[in-house]
Amino acid sequence: MAVYTDVSDEDIAAFLSEYDIGQVISFKGIAEGVENTNFLLQTDRAPYILTLYEKRVNPDDLPFFLGLMDHLSARGLNCPTPIHGKDGVALRRLCGRPAAITSFLNGMSPRRILPHHCAGVGEALAQLHVAGQDFDNYRANALTVTGWRPLFESCQDRADTVMPGLQSMIAGELDFLENNWPGNLPSGVIHADLFPDNVFFFPGEDHVSGLIDFYFACNDLLVYDVVICLNAWCFEPDNSFNVTKARNLLSGYNKVRPLGNDELQALPVLARGASLRFLLTRLYDWLNTPEGALVTPKNPREYINKLRFHQKVETAAAYGLN
Amino acid sequence: MAVYTDVSDEDIAAFLSEYDIGQVISFKGIAEGVENTNFLLQTDRAPYILTLYEKRVNPDDLPFFLGLMDHLSARGLNCPTPIHGKDGVALRRLCGRPAAITSFLNGMSPRRILPHHCAGVGEALAQLHVAGQDFDNYRANALTVTGWRPLFESCQDRADTVMPGLQSMIAGELDFLENNWPGNLPSGVIHADLFPDNVFFFPGEDHVSGLIDFYFACNDLLVYDVVICLNAWCFEPDNSFNVTKARNLLSGYNKVRPLGNDELQALPVLARGASLRFLLTRLYDWLNTPEGALVTPKNPREYINKLRFHQKVETAAAYGLN
Repeated sequence: MAVYTDVSDEDIAAFLSEYDIGQVISFKGIAEGVENTNFLLQTDRAPYILTLYEKRVNPDDLPFFLGLMDHLSARGLNCPTPIHGKDGVALRRLCGRPAAITSFLNGMSPRRILPHHCAGVGEALAQLHVAGQDFDNYRANALTVTGWRPLFESCQDRADTVMPGLQSMIAGELDFLENNWPGNLPSGVIHADLFPDNVFFFPGEDHVSGLIDFYFACNDLLVYDVVICLNAWCFEPDNSFNVTKARNLLSGYNKVRPLGNDELQALPVLARGASLRFLLTRLYDWLNTPEGALVTPKNPREYINKLRFHQKVETAAAYGLN
Repeated sequence: MAVYTDVSDEDIAAFLSEYDIGQVISFKGIAEGVENTNFLLQTDRAPYILTLYEKRVNPDDLPFFLGLMDHLSARGLNCPTPIHGKDGVALRRLCGRPAAITSFLNGMSPRRILPHHCAGVGEALAQLHVAGQDFDNYRANALTVTGWRPLFESCQDRADTVMPGLQSMIAGELDFLENNWPGNLPSGVIHADLFPDNVFFFPGEDHVSGLIDFYFACNDLLVYDVVICLNAWCFEPDNSFNVTKARNLLSGYNKVRPLGNDELQALPVLARGASLRFLLTRLYDWLNTPEGALVTPKNPREYINKLRFHQKVETAAAYGLN
């Protein structure tokens, strides 16, 4: 939610000469995106988003992300479409950073999640999974079960400063997940970060108007993306689990891509994994963000509560399915 | 440069029902304006700016500011035009804050000031002064000569922590200005904060495309606004004074509203006053901004250097006039 890199009016005018999208008439930093700097760029033809990729994004991953957005857009998914320069290149440099221009998506992120939003996001997630099936690039998920132990080891010594007993709780959960993580489920491209900030609706409408922020996208089990969404969309601010929202989310998904029985049975274990994944990254950020940083780290406690909920779940029926 | 108040998609949809400007289709916090929260609000008809007035703005002043923008717009000045609700009211409340929607201005603030920008801003400033002559509301300038001593007294004890000797430098300057401040010069509505952030141009064009941020506007000597601009536009980043820029600024102003001899003679004293005004408010903010605040205070040293420059000026010829 910050502008990390300042771009001058002269910089942007020169940068736009490499494109065929008109002349700049307005250019404003926007409070959107935690990892990168985003500008709303209005030319005399259309609005666009200009993104400067900051240091938390690995430049080597950018061709995957931009290629994926190209691919999904071509298949009709409403996501930012990379704009290619006159030389055909979408990924360029500006002010010392990798940079790209994408199309602008109308719509707004819902702040208060209502049950109908969950049906819409389930449907859109399945559409993304179907549209991504024939994308032929590959990016391993660094934040799946194999990535959690190194992350934990880098911050376990101070885990109990967040909550007494947290270190042993995570250690036990890691052992469980490493021994019980399913291997043989349908996989493909997942969004991996489909929080409400990244999903647009028009007010009062049920269907998603657009998906943004593909900068965690990777290849993994498709149903892992579903449980990330269960966590992000179906818990209330008081940490209670809203089973109506979960049912809507899963039903919306099933309408487009029906989950198999093996995927359904794996939901509780995967949901524990998705909880641990965000618990660990938030814990790491919480312990390692310097004072006075532009972005305030998110409290890891929210995901401790989610993990505890899923640890008590025995079957997928707890998520509202019949 | 921050979003202080979050506004939900539901809040904005409900708020817009009080206007006849269409349905919201996009809504993004923008990194513009230090004092208030600004959103770029796109409806199915046009783009607008929604401003929530935060605690540094006195709500009692808002009718003056909005009325002034109405007045200047009606006289053809390119500034944000307040949008009135269906009931005719422009100043409303949203999320517990005073709030208003204004028209959206195209154009961009110049980051690197070139001489032609200074000619443009001088011209635009004079147009503002002429257009404001028949505005019949009044707002005293709290940051003119009579307001500086109380401000100084509130922070003089710690002034030397910024620079040894600063307390006595300011005390001497205050004595001088209180004894030499001109009283009998043309007055009217001034912008009082016409820094480059608040002036839009189109790339490569000489004329100003728009002026924004009227939230320091008040009644005072017109030429006081001119010296605020000399300070804001005509010093280089290394603190040297660029006399070509100053000549351009004054010539641009003179084309629209010729400065009188009494105003020209008063330039050096007024420029010292304008330097002290920003030195004092920056000093106050520097000493009183809590750690971790969303906005980093500006260093007062820049205005110490400007004050020293003007202290050595004997006649207005130093500002490039023949």
